[in-house]
Parts: sequence; C-alpha cells; structure tokens
Amino acid sequence: MTRPQIVSQNKSFGGTQYVYRHRSAETGTDMRFAVYVPAGGGPGRGFPVLWYLSGLTCTEENFTVKAGAQRMASALGLIVVAPDTSPRGEGVPGDPQNAYDFGLGAGFYVDAVREPWAKNYRMRSYIERELPEAIALDFPADMTRQGITGHSMGGHGALTIALRNPGRFKSVSAFAPISSPIDCPWGQKALSGYIGEDRQAWRAYDACALIEDGARVAELLVDQGTADNFLKEQLKPELLREACAKAGIPLTLRLQEGYDHSYYFISTFIEDHLRWHAQRLNA
Amino acid sequence: MTRPQIVSQNKSFGGTQYVYRHRSAETGTDMRFAVYVPAGGGPGRGFPVLWYLSGLTCTEENFTVKAGAQRMASALGLIVVAPDTSPRGEGVPGDPQNAYDFGLGAGFYVDAVREPWAKNYRMRSYIERELPEAIALDFPADMTRQGITGHSMGGHGALTIALRNPGRFKSVSAFAPISSPIDCPWGQKALSGYIGEDRQAWRAYDACALIEDGARVAELLVDQGTADNFLKEQLKPELLREACAKAGIPLTLRLQEGYDHSYYFISTFIEDHLRWHAQRLNA
Repeated sequence: MTRPQIVSQNKSFGGTQYVYRHRSAETGTDMRFAVYVPAGGGPGRGFPVLWYLSGLTCTEENFTVKAGAQRMASALGLIVVAPDTSPRGEGVPGDPQNAYDFGLGAGFYVDAVREPWAKNYRMRSYIERELPEAIALDFPADMTRQGITGHSMGGHGALTIALRNPGRFKSVSAFAPISSPIDCPWGQKALSGYIGEDRQAWRAYDACALIEDGARVAELLVDQGTADNFLKEQLKPELLREACAKAGIPLTLRLQEGYDHSYYFISTFIEDHLRWHAQRLNA
Repeated sequence: MTRPQIVSQNKSFGGTQYVYRHRSAETGTDMRFAVYVPAGGGPGRGFPVLWYLSGLTCTEENFTVKAGAQRMASALGLIVVAPDTSPRGEGVPGDPQNAYDFGLGAGFYVDAVREPWAKNYRMRSYIERELPEAIALDFPADMTRQGITGHSMGGHGALTIALRNPGRFKSVSAFAPISSPIDCPWGQKALSGYIGEDRQAWRAYDACALIEDGARVAELLVDQGTADNFLKEQLKPELLREACAKAGIPLTLRLQEGYDHSYYFISTFIEDHLRWHAQRLNA
C-alpha cells in the first residue's frame, strides 16, 4: 500500500472535499476514494468516520457531487469516506456482455474466488481492511467511532460489512439496500459470477442470511422510496424486515412515498441519516 | 413554440425536480430546461420564480444535480428554473477549434448577429422572452415575483438580463460572475465572435457598461471565492464594485476565503442566496 495522493481538493462548507488515489495491494490497481474532512483538523481524538458505499455504476464521485452530504457533515463534525465500487484500469476484466450490474462499477463488496475475477475483485478486503488503514494513517479520524451507510448495492455492502464485523460500527443505515442478494437477480448474477455455485458461501454476503446465521447489529435505519423501480424485483425490504423481526434487531424502515432510486431520494434524506449516525457516534 | 414535454421527473424534498424539452422558435432547436416545483401546486397566486443561469460547459443538469438547491427551494417555496447554456443538436455550429468557451455550452446569453451563429445562438431572446412565456403557461408560477442569479458566464447573464429589463426582477444575485465581458478574454472572444467588432454593440452585454450607461437594479448580492482560478484574468469583481459604487447601486460583494470556481463553492452558499431572494420575492 502506498500513501494516498491528492487528486483534487475543494473547499466545501468550511471543510475540504478531497479525492485521493492510492495503489491497492488487495485489488492490484490504483483505487480512488473521496473524503470529506470538516474544518479544524480534528478536535482532540479526531472526527468520527462515516463510510458511504455507493451503488451499481457509481464511482467515488456520485455521492460526493450529488448527495449534498457536506453541509451536515461539516455541521456535525463527521469525516465521510466514499470509496469506488470496483477495481478499474488496464487488465481488470469487466462484465463479458458489458452489462452494468457485474464487473466494473459492480464489485458488490465481495472477495471474488472465481477466475478471472479473483485477482482484482477484492472489494470486501479493500473496504474492510486496507482502506480503513489508509484513513487511520492519513486523516484526523477517530477510528473508534465509525458508522457505515450506503445505497442499493452499497446498502447491501454496508449491512453485510457491519454484520460481519461486530462492534466495529456504532451506527449502521442504508438507502434502498439490496436486502438479500441470494434472493434477487442482481445478487444471484454477482454471487454466482464472483463466488461460484456454492450457495453456502454466498451467505457471508447476504444481510438476511447473516442475521439468520446469528450476526447482529444494535439497530438499523433504512429508507426506501415507494416509487423505486427496483423495489419489488431487487431490493425487497420485506425480507430485511422479516429477518430483523425474527432476530430482534430494531429496524427503523421508512417507506418514503413517491421517491425513486436516484440521488434526489438520497439527498432528501441524507440529513436524517447523518444526524442519526452523529447521535450514535458522539454518544 | 411547442408545449414542453417532460424528460424526467424526480421527487425531491417533497417537491418535484423536472427536466423538460421543448422546441424553441428563437434557437430553432430543441431546448432542455430544469424546473424545481415545490409541493402543493402553488399557493393562491403561485410560487415566485428564481432563474439560475449556468456557466461555461454546463447544461441544465449541472446546477440541478450539484448545487443542492432543492432543499431550500422547497422550504422557501420557490420555483427554480435552470436553462441550458446554448442551442445544441444537428446543424448547430460549435467553436471552430472545439474550445470550451465559445459555441456549444457557451452561448453567453447574447443574440448573435454574425454568421454562422446568428440563426441558432439567440440565448438572450430565449431566456428573456420565450422561456418565461413557457414557464408562465405551464407551471404554478407567479411571474410578478421573479428573481435571477447565475454562475460565472451565467452570473454575467443574470446581471445583464436584470439590468436590461428594469422592474422585472425583484432580486438579483450572482456567483463568481464575469463582471465585464468587454474587459476579459472569455468575453472578448464571445462578443467578437457572436456580435462582431462593433464594440459599442457589446455594451448591451456588459454589466459594468450597462451600469455606466444608466441601467440600474435595486441591489446586488455577489459571492466570489478567493481561490477561484479565473478571478484575476476573467471575473474581476473589482470592476463591478467600481461600477456599482459610482452608480450608487448597493452591492454586497462577499469574498469567500479559499473557495474555488466549482459547485462546491456554489452549494456552500446557495442557501444564503435562496434566502436572500425569497426575502425580496415574498416582501
């Protein structure tokens, strides 16, 4: 791992919106990530860190440019990290049919075991281990206070990473997450592609299966638009609701009338999520 | 003029962010524009209308996606209209060298008189006459309460359109405007290209010259980042300050330390501008 280099920096709401690039040992590629750092350089122990994992087709840029998160991140004193969604670059294989839902922009936050994906598609280890080390090293971050959220594929990422790493995140939320990749076309394509046909191995990448198998988080906040085109076929929040209910995990599932799957939905409710995380990270 | 057709609509902060397309008689092309409409359909006389004119290279999309204006537009009850910055499409000539600062994405809010631009590049008449007629016809808008703002080239557009149409706008502001196109490389290229070498004719498209020649607005709010790469060569807020001082126009010019020319700057201060406009539009 080499130290991150600044790609761009822009003053925003008193703090700084950075984009960095670094060499990832996990993916074997250069990876970009966006980091918002509030003004002041970190009071005492540093700022709490909120991770935001993006959805299909996104890079580190979509959330950074479209969500309007900087205003409340500044007001609440949160570092917000938005990674890319897959390895990219020369030699990195994409979807054989150039589809949007596998390969480039669609890493699904898994460590692939099938070839030709296994070499580069290690987004689980990149997000769970390598990038946090870089953040801890180079930013005024208090890594004892981390929260995680994400959108769609990134909501699935946030839920599964939190469930697999008990105690690491003091707060977990999601926007329109894929509730159960095992049980939807996006997830089935991704998991059979990256992991193969051993469905038992898929369960480490499925929030509902992880909960069934005993993994726990303290509580969850999930927003879901009712006009989301992917609601019924792909996202299926009712599966998450059932899993949480059975496991006794307090889930606040808000069905937002008339909202779709876009960043207009996310930007409308990002303030609620940032406040929810800050309340728990600063408790 | 045909009635606008919806290209997209997304629920945002309780209201709706629309993108429309319509045939423009002025430009002879299809034009797109974005409109944010707060919830409620327009109380009584309708919502006041704020115009936002974008800068070089932009379409109707940049402001709509990046500025985060919908939150306060919803809270304050403002319709916000963001037009495109030039005609586009088959047969519309661009810059001969494909530069970013002339032709496509760079209409400069003028009515061109030189060929081959004169036929399509009629952004002044499109913004001053044709598009307001469309807005009045199809949206819950109170056209007796209009404000105008813009960024960079669009800040120039906002200032000059307000100065040439006394009484139409109850509020005028700008982000990092080109203060005097006559006196900077961007403006000189655009005005010589669209208008020709008759520098007297340029004065209708120069905020400082219009003020010198007697045009007035009640007051102005201008934000300008001190880390803006275009500050000294192109934007020159000191020229606007001098012109306003001489003419007795109250100008609130805020030099924002460390901010650049990007939408990170605009999104940081858009709330201040929307509040400033709403205060005057609702007075």
